Amino acid sequence: MEAFPSVSNIPFEGSGSTNPLAFKHYNAEEEVEGRTMRDHLRFSVVYWHTFRGSGSDPFGPGTMQRPWDDGTDSLENAKNRVRVAFEFIDKLGAPFYAFHDRDVAPEGASLSESHANLEAVADVLEEEQQRTGVRLLWGTANLFSHPRYMHGAATSCNAEVFGMAAAQVKKAIEVTHRLGGEGYVFWGGREGYQTLWNTDMRREQAHLARFLHMAADYAKEIGFQGQFYIEPKPKEPTKHQYDSDAAACLNFLREHGLKGRFKLNLETNHATLAGHTMQHELDVAGAADALGSIDANTGDLLLGWDTDQFPTDIYLTTQCMLTLMKYGGLTTGGVNFDAKVRRESFDPLDLFYAHIGGMDAFARGLKIAAAIRADGRLESMLRERYSSWDSGLGAEIEQGRHSLGTLEQHMLELGDAAPNASGRQELLENIVNEFL
Amino acid sequence: MEAFPSVSNIPFEGSGSTNPLAFKHYNAEEEVEGRTMRDHLRFSVVYWHTFRGSGSDPFGPGTMQRPWDDGTDSLENAKNRVRVAFEFIDKLGAPFYAFHDRDVAPEGASLSESHANLEAVADVLEEEQQRTGVRLLWGTANLFSHPRYMHGAATSCNAEVFGMAAAQVKKAIEVTHRLGGEGYVFWGGREGYQTLWNTDMRREQAHLARFLHMAADYAKEIGFQGQFYIEPKPKEPTKHQYDSDAAACLNFLREHGLKGRFKLNLETNHATLAGHTMQHELDVAGAADALGSIDANTGDLLLGWDTDQFPTDIYLTTQCMLTLMKYGGLTTGGVNFDAKVRRESFDPLDLFYAHIGGMDAFARGLKIAAAIRADGRLESMLRERYSSWDSGLGAEIEQGRHSLGTLEQHMLELGDAAPNASGRQELLENIVNEFL
Amino acid sequence: MEAFPSVSNIPFEGSGSTNPLAFKHYNAEEEVEGRTMRDHLRFSVVYWHTFRGSGSDPFGPGTMQRPWDDGTDSLENAKNRVRVAFEFIDKLGAPFYAFHDRDVAPEGASLSESHANLEAVADVLEEEQQRTGVRLLWGTANLFSHPRYMHGAATSCNAEVFGMAAAQVKKAIEVTHRLGGEGYVFWGGREGYQTLWNTDMRREQAHLARFLHMAADYAKEIGFQGQFYIEPKPKEPTKHQYDSDAAACLNFLREHGLKGRFKLNLETNHATLAGHTMQHELDVAGAADALGSIDANTGDLLLGWDTDQFPTDIYLTTQCMLTLMKYGGLTTGGVNFDAKVRRESFDPLDLFYAHIGGMDAFARGLKIAAAIRADGRLESMLRERYSSWDSGLGAEIEQGRHSLGTLEQHMLELGDAAPNASGRQELLENIVNEFL
Amino acid sequence: MEAFPSVSNIPFEGSGSTNPLAFKHYNAEEEVEGRTMRDHLRFSVVYWHTFRGSGSDPFGPGTMQRPWDDGTDSLENAKNRVRVAFEFIDKLGAPFYAFHDRDVAPEGASLSESHANLEAVADVLEEEQQRTGVRLLWGTANLFSHPRYMHGAATSCNAEVFGMAAAQVKKAIEVTHRLGGEGYVFWGGREGYQTLWNTDMRREQAHLARFLHMAADYAKEIGFQGQFYIEPKPKEPTKHQYDSDAAACLNFLREHGLKGRFKLNLETNHATLAGHTMQHELDVAGAADALGSIDANTGDLLLGWDTDQFPTDIYLTTQCMLTLMKYGGLTTGGVNFDAKVRRESFDPLDLFYAHIGGMDAFARGLKIAAAIRADGRLESMLRERYSSWDSGLGAEIEQGRHSLGTLEQHMLELGDAAPNASGRQELLENIVNEFL
Repeated sequence: MEAFPSVSNIPFEGSGSTNPLAFKHYNAEEEVEGRTMRDHLRFSVVYWHTFRGSGSDPFGPGTMQRPWDDGTDSLENAKNRVRVAFEFIDKLGAPFYAFHDRDVAPEGASLSESHANLEAVADVLEEEQQRTGVRLLWGTANLFSHPRYMHGAATSCNAEVFGMAAAQVKKAIEVTHRLGGEGYVFWGGREGYQTLWNTDMRREQAHLARFLHMAADYAKEIGFQGQFYIEPKPKEPTKHQYDSDAAACLNFLREHGLKGRFKLNLETNHATLAGHTMQHELDVAGAADALGSIDANTGDLLLGWDTDQFPTDIYLTTQCMLTLMKYGGLTTGGVNFDAKVRRESFDPLDLFYAHIGGMDAFARGLKIAAAIRADGRLESMLRERYSSWDSGLGAEIEQGRHSLGTLEQHMLELGDAAPNASGRQELLENIVNEFL
Repeated sequence: MEAFPSVSNIPFEGSGSTNPLAFKHYNAEEEVEGRTMRDHLRFSVVYWHTFRGSGSDPFGPGTMQRPWDDGTDSLENAKNRVRVAFEFIDKLGAPFYAFHDRDVAPEGASLSESHANLEAVADVLEEEQQRTGVRLLWGTANLFSHPRYMHGAATSCNAEVFGMAAAQVKKAIEVTHRLGGEGYVFWGGREGYQTLWNTDMRREQAHLARFLHMAADYAKEIGFQGQFYIEPKPKEPTKHQYDSDAAACLNFLREHGLKGRFKLNLETNHATLAGHTMQHELDVAGAADALGSIDANTGDLLLGWDTDQFPTDIYLTTQCMLTLMKYGGLTTGGVNFDAKVRRESFDPLDLFYAHIGGMDAFARGLKIAAAIRADGRLESMLRERYSSWDSGLGAEIEQGRHSLGTLEQHMLELGDAAPNASGRQELLENIVNEFL
Repeated sequence: MEAFPSVSNIPFEGSGSTNPLAFKHYNAEEEVEGRTMRDHLRFSVVYWHTFRGSGSDPFGPGTMQRPWDDGTDSLENAKNRVRVAFEFIDKLGAPFYAFHDRDVAPEGASLSESHANLEAVADVLEEEQQRTGVRLLWGTANLFSHPRYMHGAATSCNAEVFGMAAAQVKKAIEVTHRLGGEGYVFWGGREGYQTLWNTDMRREQAHLARFLHMAADYAKEIGFQGQFYIEPKPKEPTKHQYDSDAAACLNFLREHGLKGRFKLNLETNHATLAGHTMQHELDVAGAADALGSIDANTGDLLLGWDTDQFPTDIYLTTQCMLTLMKYGGLTTGGVNFDAKVRRESFDPLDLFYAHIGGMDAFARGLKIAAAIRADGRLESMLRERYSSWDSGLGAEIEQGRHSLGTLEQHMLELGDAAPNASGRQELLENIVNEFL
Repeated sequence: MEAFPSVSNIPFEGSGSTNPLAFKHYNAEEEVEGRTMRDHLRFSVVYWHTFRGSGSDPFGPGTMQRPWDDGTDSLENAKNRVRVAFEFIDKLGAPFYAFHDRDVAPEGASLSESHANLEAVADVLEEEQQRTGVRLLWGTANLFSHPRYMHGAATSCNAEVFGMAAAQVKKAIEVTHRLGGEGYVFWGGREGYQTLWNTDMRREQAHLARFLHMAADYAKEIGFQGQFYIEPKPKEPTKHQYDSDAAACLNFLREHGLKGRFKLNLETNHATLAGHTMQHELDVAGAADALGSIDANTGDLLLGWDTDQFPTDIYLTTQCMLTLMKYGGLTTGGVNFDAKVRRESFDPLDLFYAHIGGMDAFARGLKIAAAIRADGRLESMLRERYSSWDSGLGAEIEQGRHSLGTLEQHMLELGDAAPNASGRQELLENIVNEFL
């Protein structure tokens, strides 16, 4: 591959071509259920994997060829990188991006220098947002890479580390606010433990709750009304993270009076690691009115770590879109590609192939979901299945008109329940397959 | 092995012998931290695995030789079986037992007949309790075996099935109350789904919450003050159960205003299936003041189903006892052997070997835990690790005297956090090993 | 659902209808790459799950409604069941079936009675084969359900159990031969161990090898030339089975001089349990010239036991068909549905929905695979990727013309290897998606 | 912790102290079954984790404090590091070490420079070996870290990469030979695939076989008689490695005529990832006369990646030592700590705690195993269990005097097999627990 300073010479062709460097299914302006695909899907490119990912893994260093990047941690390089990033996002036609503070700007020798670096890069981000119209889906602070966060950030045993994390989040919220971010994410990469032998779980979680309250208070103070999210993940880098899955997050939010201010940012990959399907996690969050945004990358069901692959499975994207649409679709959130190209896909072209594949897979999922909804069979079979709850005994129970005593009386008279109907799982799976 | 009508001829030798048919470590009267082992451990034998387990598995029928059991579902056989069960429990010296309604007494042709059967067997249970002094740790209703519960019980799509479950629980609570049960357990074996395509998760969970409220109301009505428990398990027999782990249960209890009335009954095996250590689940429950009782059986970390093995790993029993003692020890709950002998261990002798092994393993865990507590090194290392939170900045944060703003100011002055100390995981593991 | 004595009144519509009770994609006569779909896919219905499956699971008894079955183990019932089975298979248009001896005919009170039962049922099977034209894909003996096989069959610690297994296999091979079976399968359900503490693995495996040699000798003796298969599965019902995956089976066959006589019968579900993709297992077997037949049922990637579900994932069926076609397609083997309807799908209609879904999914997989092959891009990218081995240094190495010494010399001159090309995984996945 | 240039000032106390910086159980001179613990255990310290491990993980950079290391890749630093390493190994009293070429010496700008670097460091290794008496257990080449190996080394699609790997292995074998290495290991970290879509498995494995034959030929040529090992691991860094477990390795060795020259180097951690117990893998290798050496580090049974933890579980070490002793104990191999301290255990002291813990755990395992062997109960129960094979029918079968026909005849006369005995798993587990 020839060296080049940006992605400008990559012959990306947009929609409507058979070229592998073009979308086959995604068309931003196309309407589905009266809303454009752009608005349904709210695609977001992540800065860290796409522009900072090196391809290193635990058994080898980076492989990525990024000719626009001089490989240094200089502020100048950081700014140049932003220009390329926006060229890429703009070319691709994704309406959003997302960033960590320390991925866009280098950590300085002191906190104040780190702050200054971030502000300096934010100037360029702002310019580029204005130039391209690309918006910020959410910002976040990287509270897991620096060695100071080895024992956690808000849950560190070292109170000053909590202090550093607080200062970093304050600045990250400010910058997110300044850039018009529609949300702010907390992913507690090291908020958990490596071993319970050295861990006071209750005290650590109380600190985490306090931390999130401080963040909410600060957002209010400065008028930042973007949605706050926490992001479940059960493990990696820690042995066990506190925010292990959607239910654990909701439990934490309820316990600490935070549920009103926070929604969930759900990732397929993390659902897998927690032993759930993404459809399950989305439904748990949706049922609790906490379905915020999604990280669309997937993992490998036979591996046990975060592979952060671009999604290409149409079954998965269909399930995601159906569940999102069931709960009203994305509002503040988006379909964010927290995904990385494989270590062996080191060529800038692969960044295009990967995003095209992911965006097309979600576009197909959207269209299939809409077709299933228009068809109505799945929905009507579901409604029929619960029909005994819509009147008679079921309705009375739902209305709170029964106790164990009245129900016993009722059933003693009947002798037994009416026969069950088949669950029809196989038929339902066949119907779904009709739409693929 | 010769046939025999009971376990009377098995030469069990109690404590203090080197015979394999004797305890090597458990001694009911021995005091540990000022409390007898009997009171610390509150061992309970389960009726279903020990007296109804057949040894069948998905690839073959039962193998167990239980010469006292005529293999029929007759009421007479059910009563005889109770006599043998109490002989066994009494011989073993376990202070408690636990039962499902349909395991002690046969399902009748109608609800009223089932009720009558249960009452008839309860007469025998009561006699035997009085004869032996063995008490009821908890009762429960089997709401998962009968085909009517194929789609769930409280979460069934069939409202009359909910009614049957309610009637069955009403009776089971009554019988538990009559027998002086110290608790009552809800394990929602089929409260979940096989496929989300046919499932309305939100509606089903609302029904489950209503069901539990009815049960709590009824207990109050009849004056039953035993502890209510729900029992986490992520899967099997369903693809996904709603009460998937401790955090999911707590989330559910909080959402539906049930947390005050319910604690958790935690099982090692279920923790494994959920991807957690038992120590984790105990700590999650303990930190939420919801640590109720434990099912002491284990699974196999390389298999994916419920093997319900008797616990013999001293590391595990040490972790269990340390965590229980950290939260004040067992009160209403117990160490319940929800465990079954292997399909190939079909001989009644194996029931003794298995319980001896499990009880000795927990007795050792108790003694080791007490020794670790007396030694104090683990505790003091833990305290030291969090000492930055006991004064100065940490204490101020805990007292609510900081915001992101004041913390940023503080850290800008410091420039960075104080260095971290080593987590010392390897040393901690070595110290634990000193006590084994 | 109304009661009915057979499946005659189920309005199955064959191909070419939009009715859920019709194939959407499978059309036996349609040609793909010059061969009919019937011949490509060689579908087989299994007798045990489809006609003996009760729907029981470890937490509850059976649920299936099979009005033609009187629920007894009588020979009469066994014969009647065969009639219904063939009506079903014939209606569905599957060209093959497969059976276990003990599933078609009841175990007798003695070995000779069991033999007689099997012969009596074989008479009916033979009649029905002739009536319908349905053929026997393979026969097998159930050496895992009867309690005598608790410690294994050929690997039992009890030599007489080995003897019983030998006698049972002798008869099963005879019957398979008589019925024109195209193969014979050995699945060692209990050939493994529950605990290594009581197991002599080396001795047990030597017994298994002897057993298979005896079977091969006997087949030769009676002129049965059907293909022998062993079937990998890592666990369940044992903790660990010896034939854990394709590689373990091949290792065993090579060690004991059996590779020439045996091929592998691979199952998706078992691949999953072993931590492999089905595509991997097929490729391992194919590369070793041991790709025999497939069990097309799938498992659940988040559960740890054998769910034996009907396959509906088009990605999976595409991968299966591509790999089969790469190695020349099925010859003696077939696509066998070793699959069961869900416990909640208890209605005979569900048997149709399930088989329709599985057959259609494989028909789609076949068509997609053929389209990918016709397109040629995947194949040419693969060929290009290895082109450095087709000439020059690579070809010399393949021809055996290099040693470490000559290669070192060569590379010292070059200094380093030529740059790598991108692995293009994302692009490849996008190309595959084009065909779905 | 104060900075220091080496480990000289760490107050390690050897054996026989209660200090955490002393062995509690390992005593090199102590005899067990007539052999010193040193000779039984043949402990080996690995150079890479212990002296090159940085503590980085996929979510953060290194944390380790190694004050003797200047952090550069200079040859000077490499040589200094060797001095510290030998001081550590010598202080600890481990008789062996193991290295990768690229961990002891830096990769150069060209192959010849890399060769020269390795030779230069080998001079220092040789000096230090002579000074301390520490010996080389085995050497190996790192064929997975450098980006050129992204697609594999011997299995790369790039023939020149194969050439580079060959040259690197040639030099590594030479250096191992020069340093008196008792073995040489091949771990194929990237010999596998990320996706089957771009992989020709059969061709790649043929290349790997040729590569190993070349290595064997070269060893013969230069008179290196050390044992060759291959090391199973199923995944990480690749999605799937060819050498996935012991059975897969043996299959490969048999297929390619390499079994006589290669044994296995088995790692607990890798067994876990493959879904096996270490005891299983050891037994598979032992039964095939291929049990060579062990990597003693463990993984976490609830995580899915290589945690490479120091072993502290006495059950595990007992199982390892029992199985090793069953097959005659270690000869050319050793107990190699391919283990790393946790990222949070960044202090040089932790290197001592970790090795002490691992060595003590294995010393205990050895003593317990010897006690179990002296006791004899486990062994005699095992012998008794298979006694039906020692005479009569079983012996006749083992002697090859039966066919399916004669066995059928025999069993028709008997009618059924003799009853089975209980598997006694629970009793066996209790007996093992007696020795802990």
